[in-house]
Amino acid sequence: MRMQSEPAYRRLVNPYVPMRVFSDDQVAAIHAAALTILENQGMKVLSRGARERLRVDGAVHDEAAQTVRLDRALVGHCLGTAPREITLYAASSEHDVPLSGRAVAFGPSSGAPNVSDLQRGRRAGTLADYEDGVRLCQSYDVVHLLGAFTEPQDVPPPLRQLAMMHAQLRLADKIPHTFCRGAAQINDCFELVRRAFGLSREQFRERPCTYTIINTNSPLVLDAPMADGIVEFALAGQVQMITPFTLSGAMAPVTLAGALTLAHAETLFGLSLAQVARPGAPVVYGSFTSNVDMKSGSPAFGTPEYVKAQFGAGQMARFLGLPWRSSNATGSNIPDAQGAYESQMSLWGALLGGSNFVLHAAGWMESGLTSSFEKFILDVEQLQMLAEVLQPLGGDGNGISHAYRPLLAGESPGDDADATLRANRVYRRALADYQTPARDPAVLEALDDYMRRRTDAGGSPPQT
Amino acid sequence: MRMQSEPAYRRLVNPYVPMRVFSDDQVAAIHAAALTILENQGMKVLSRGARERLRVDGAVHDEAAQTVRLDRALVGHCLGTAPREITLYAASSEHDVPLSGRAVAFGPSSGAPNVSDLQRGRRAGTLADYEDGVRLCQSYDVVHLLGAFTEPQDVPPPLRQLAMMHAQLRLADKIPHTFCRGAAQINDCFELVRRAFGLSREQFRERPCTYTIINTNSPLVLDAPMADGIVEFALAGQVQMITPFTLSGAMAPVTLAGALTLAHAETLFGLSLAQVARPGAPVVYGSFTSNVDMKSGSPAFGTPEYVKAQFGAGQMARFLGLPWRSSNATGSNIPDAQGAYESQMSLWGALLGGSNFVLHAAGWMESGLTSSFEKFILDVEQLQMLAEVLQPLGGDGNGISHAYRPLLAGESPGDDADATLRANRVYRRALADYQTPARDPAVLEALDDYMRRRTDAGGSPPQT
Repeated sequence: MRMQSEPAYRRLVNPYVPMRVFSDDQVAAIHAAALTILENQGMKVLSRGARERLRVDGAVHDEAAQTVRLDRALVGHCLGTAPREITLYAASSEHDVPLSGRAVAFGPSSGAPNVSDLQRGRRAGTLADYEDGVRLCQSYDVVHLLGAFTEPQDVPPPLRQLAMMHAQLRLADKIPHTFCRGAAQINDCFELVRRAFGLSREQFRERPCTYTIINTNSPLVLDAPMADGIVEFALAGQVQMITPFTLSGAMAPVTLAGALTLAHAETLFGLSLAQVARPGAPVVYGSFTSNVDMKSGSPAFGTPEYVKAQFGAGQMARFLGLPWRSSNATGSNIPDAQGAYESQMSLWGALLGGSNFVLHAAGWMESGLTSSFEKFILDVEQLQMLAEVLQPLGGDGNGISHAYRPLLAGESPGDDADATLRANRVYRRALADYQTPARDPAVLEALDDYMRRRTDAGGSPPQT
Repeated sequence: MRMQSEPAYRRLVNPYVPMRVFSDDQVAAIHAAALTILENQGMKVLSRGARERLRVDGAVHDEAAQTVRLDRALVGHCLGTAPREITLYAASSEHDVPLSGRAVAFGPSSGAPNVSDLQRGRRAGTLADYEDGVRLCQSYDVVHLLGAFTEPQDVPPPLRQLAMMHAQLRLADKIPHTFCRGAAQINDCFELVRRAFGLSREQFRERPCTYTIINTNSPLVLDAPMADGIVEFALAGQVQMITPFTLSGAMAPVTLAGALTLAHAETLFGLSLAQVARPGAPVVYGSFTSNVDMKSGSPAFGTPEYVKAQFGAGQMARFLGLPWRSSNATGSNIPDAQGAYESQMSLWGALLGGSNFVLHAAGWMESGLTSSFEKFILDVEQLQMLAEVLQPLGGDGNGISHAYRPLLAGESPGDDADATLRANRVYRRALADYQTPARDPAVLEALDDYMRRRTDAGGSPPQT
């Protein structure tokens, strides 16, 4: 019988043939159309430093418009140096995360300004909430990477990233997440990670052990923190997941092919900047394409259009041979049945599309405005169920010799409490039972020392 | 923008390649093992009449044990006469339902003794509840067949099937469902259907227009109403879906291959009885294999094991070339997040497994003990979303030119009500707005007349 801690979930491999919405010809046509966009329009890059990096053959600059156009030979060359095999190395090797081939990994809801639970309601996130998010990620083997569960708004912005990274490294031993809000903050985070992992600068550059999300500003704009983040992550050899957020019918064309063409062009641009900064920089192909609700005009997630966009984006990533990141998203404002079925739609879309990494896999709610503690548990239950669906039957078809033991359905037999209420009990018990992984006191002291010095210096203001 | 009534959902075709859990060799081995079971053990058949039908070459009787063993040549011959193409013909041709190839159809929760809604709670079903279930099925194009939404316990058993069939034929024009509780009741239902569809007995026998579910009594028992039902449906040329209900770890082996081997053997036996009774009788391959919860010992649904069992059962049905029926099931006692994600697991398992007909697709709850009005709407939303996922993109990849308009997410913008509460509003509005399809008054009078005569005669007691 399987227990809450389930090492079998630490390395997931997807045995199913990915779904397709495009023919091979359509995939090639989308790629060609994206190259044409990059040649004819290029992207507006709001960082002068990043633009200067792109002073290379095949790049055409218009400094007044802040645009850089890339010819297809340059993009092709950059695709040639991007690695196909990427692994994130954790402090503890049992938490290393391969991101290539048929590997599947999950990360938590990230970037939400708010958190929510049944006792305390919806409120602005704090460092205590963030730390609870880290503890929950560490508690379940099916959550492979840490993330930015909420924005701790009780910590001043110049110290916030330091506090978040310090919490990840103190409280857990899974892969930590770094935000891109300027070179100074990024390098603060890198210094903490180096100390936690005991790596020299040279060793760190050769060993991916933290990751970030690069969001373009669709259509065809790369803002300064993101452009600089691409460069900093490339130079440091750390993993960046370049993820255009395109809503068809809003900032992107209304057709699936059109929206994915735009997203593909933006990802190729970011990848090219990374490869020019450092050939061989590890880049993950990210996608986050959905539609707007036709009635309210607000973003909709977990929709049929979202599922098909995932199938299509997965085809584009495989066309390039790159690892592919997608998301578990819902527009539901509360952790109810709608949140559950929209998340299931998103998760099946991701897995059937062949996703290697699913961000926002646990806890995402309200179109990303809120991370919910109950939703985290509801999602972990679903992730564990899907992890079981991915497990091979074995050569003799012997697939029901163990039965999955649910977190919630079996939480309290005979109990008719709403699943959300049961999830509340489960998350509070997980936090009450939490045991911080053992750490070398010298490492903890080195982290504390760095934190003290940077705090005394006032931290680093975020780049905007 | 799509509306509640969506003719595009009336004919669904699954464009995706079905998932597999077994190799071709494993599929062949399961089939061979099932044939060996039928040859060596056979099935216990609790109807003498049905056993007498099986006095044919290749059948070995043990009348004391009430068992009939079938050799593989006989089963092979019967597989040869079973049709691969089956269509159910409705009163209105727009509601005809093809059940073969890549066709997909959905039917409602069936057979529940209880119904539930937020205002009235959980209670024994009545004829009024049953009629509301028929109206809801008729209201949504994504529900293709009628069913036995609840058991109307305010109608005496000898008149209950008459009342249910009369309600289906008066209130709707989709495919009606018939229960198997003895030849007398079945033939009452057939007589009503003939009158509603204006068919002579001969025409009726050549035109499948009602369906039933045959459940075996695993392991390897066929009770009298089911055995006689197989014969009656075969003789009448109406559609029977032979569905062993096997819970691995309870009445079936704990391995997936073992549980599916038993189910396959039982389905082959039922199919053989039908083909001996009338070669060419339309038989659908049904499966309902799940596992028991290891903690409580109660049946569990929508589990990872259930999904894999669906993938495997779909492979077995395709191996025989028969249409395949599966189910949308959940163990949740209320229409909450657990009910939603277990149903999504079940539905994806069915569609990815290549199911042609999904029974219990809307409204099933509490392991089948209750049909819920709110769950019906929550499920219809999910069925519509999945129906959209099945829609082709079109040759130009133009897939987001319309966006799915949700029943619930868009029900009331800015409304944070729980999805279950919103589903309650939607189902009550659907019933308030319900318009009975127009019917020839002479037909209605013929139905009333038959009902009066049978009611005056006391109806037909159910066979037990």
